[in-house]
Amino acid sequence: MIRHSVIFTLKYAKGSAEEKDFLQATEKLADIPGVKAFEQLEQVSKKNTFDYGLSMEFANQDEYDIYNNHPDHTAFIRQYWIPGVEDFLEIDYTPLNK
Amino acid sequence: MIRHSVIFTLKYAKGSAEEKDFLQATEKLADIPGVKAFEQLEQVSKKNTFDYGLSMEFANQDEYDIYNNHPDHTAFIRQYWIPGVEDFLEIDYTPLNK
Repeated sequence: MIRHSVIFTLKYAKGSAEEKDFLQATEKLADIPGVKAFEQLEQVSKKNTFDYGLSMEFANQDEYDIYNNHPDHTAFIRQYWIPGVEDFLEIDYTPLNK
Repeated sequence: MIRHSVIFTLKYAKGSAEEKDFLQATEKLADIPGVKAFEQLEQVSKKNTFDYGLSMEFANQDEYDIYNNHPDHTAFIRQYWIPGVEDFLEIDYTPLNK
């Protein structure tokens, strides 16, 4: 299992129509084949500057690659992510293999 | 629900006894009252420099505060975290309130 996540801030004001549109657009990522445990998150720690998070799980790297290359994902990146995101950090986890 | 997580790198070499000791010590955090869904994670994205993650969930801020102030947590910070951690970022999530 690979848990893919990204924490980010938007260029849009809190409560703005643009922010709402962006967050609604992220919901459609959950419908891309292979995406499991999709979550839209608010980042609430004051120890970093990010406001939001998205998290999803893939069974394996192949499923992750299919998502990355899926036209609905690349369209989201082009139409929403690139114009709207101010700052972000991608984090991918697997269970620790001890 | 608050999902508290931290991504981090250690000062210790991969596969070293010190690294193993550190990671084993983190397991005991799961026994602190209020800690749910405890996970030890490996960070596998090449888009950041962190190697490991810990994640846990609390029912609410009160449970989170109890954990933070618990003597087993503060002892872990003193004995393992401060001497062993090279770099880290804390991230706390709640489900997005749309």
